[in-house]
Amino acid sequence: MNRFTYEELFVGQTAEFSREITNEMMDKFCEISGDVNPLHKEESFAKDKGYPGRVVYGMLTSAMYSCLGGVYIPGENCLLQSVHSDFLAPVFIGDTLTCMGKIVEKNDSVRQVVIKAVIRNQEGKKVSRAKIEAGVL
Amino acid sequence: MNRFTYEELFVGQTAEFSREITNEMMDKFCEISGDVNPLHKEESFAKDKGYPGRVVYGMLTSAMYSCLGGVYIPGENCLLQSVHSDFLAPVFIGDTLTCMGKIVEKNDSVRQVVIKAVIRNQEGKKVSRAKIEAGVL
Repeated sequence: MNRFTYEELFVGQTAEFSREITNEMMDKFCEISGDVNPLHKEESFAKDKGYPGRVVYGMLTSAMYSCLGGVYIPGENCLLQSVHSDFLAPVFIGDTLTCMGKIVEKNDSVRQVVIKAVIRNQEGKKVSRAKIEAGVL
Repeated sequence: MNRFTYEELFVGQTAEFSREITNEMMDKFCEISGDVNPLHKEESFAKDKGYPGRVVYGMLTSAMYSCLGGVYIPGENCLLQSVHSDFLAPVFIGDTLTCMGKIVEKNDSVRQVVIKAVIRNQEGKKVSRAKIEAGVL
């Protein structure tokens, strides 16, 4: 885990990490959220809608933005203030997602960094993008 | 689960549901996200930072927005396109959160609804707000 102070963080600073989406993560997200939508739960429903398999919850992929702030930049001193995510392409179980973030702004008066981030799948396709505001404790 | 068609949805339509945040949900979110930040994991760290206990992941509360779209409005035919969440006040384990959403816009050309949503804790305090765009399959 990184432990950057506000002063150590700089515009242009980047971080990157990857995770594979598993069936178990899908089950856990369903329990946390209560989102039992069949697009995420039933293979046959997803196929009827034209997808090759169950579609991964957009907000499960966005959980990576929590990790980006809380573990990478700023890391330990992070207090997430907002996450604005856009879902650009469907994600499927077994996909390996890579989350990349870059600090684009520092707001000294409120000790806040603004991070632009994207998530790509194993084929390099952009599946999500976000703007994240994080306070630095 | 609701199964509204695009035509049945209307501006002004609302939905509401509640969930209690448990320790188990915190553990599951940690595993899904990889966010091992001590603000969410360690009582003593959170107290040192001035909180009464471990702070609930902002993005765990945002999982309720996935449920709002996928189960309530539009329900079964939902395809989430974006969730822009702002975290307004800290949430703690044991809090009961109520998520309320209202359709504020229908975009016929892309069969999309725009929902404004808020999450309040058991004291009525607004802890999160969001703008959600959902396609209707």
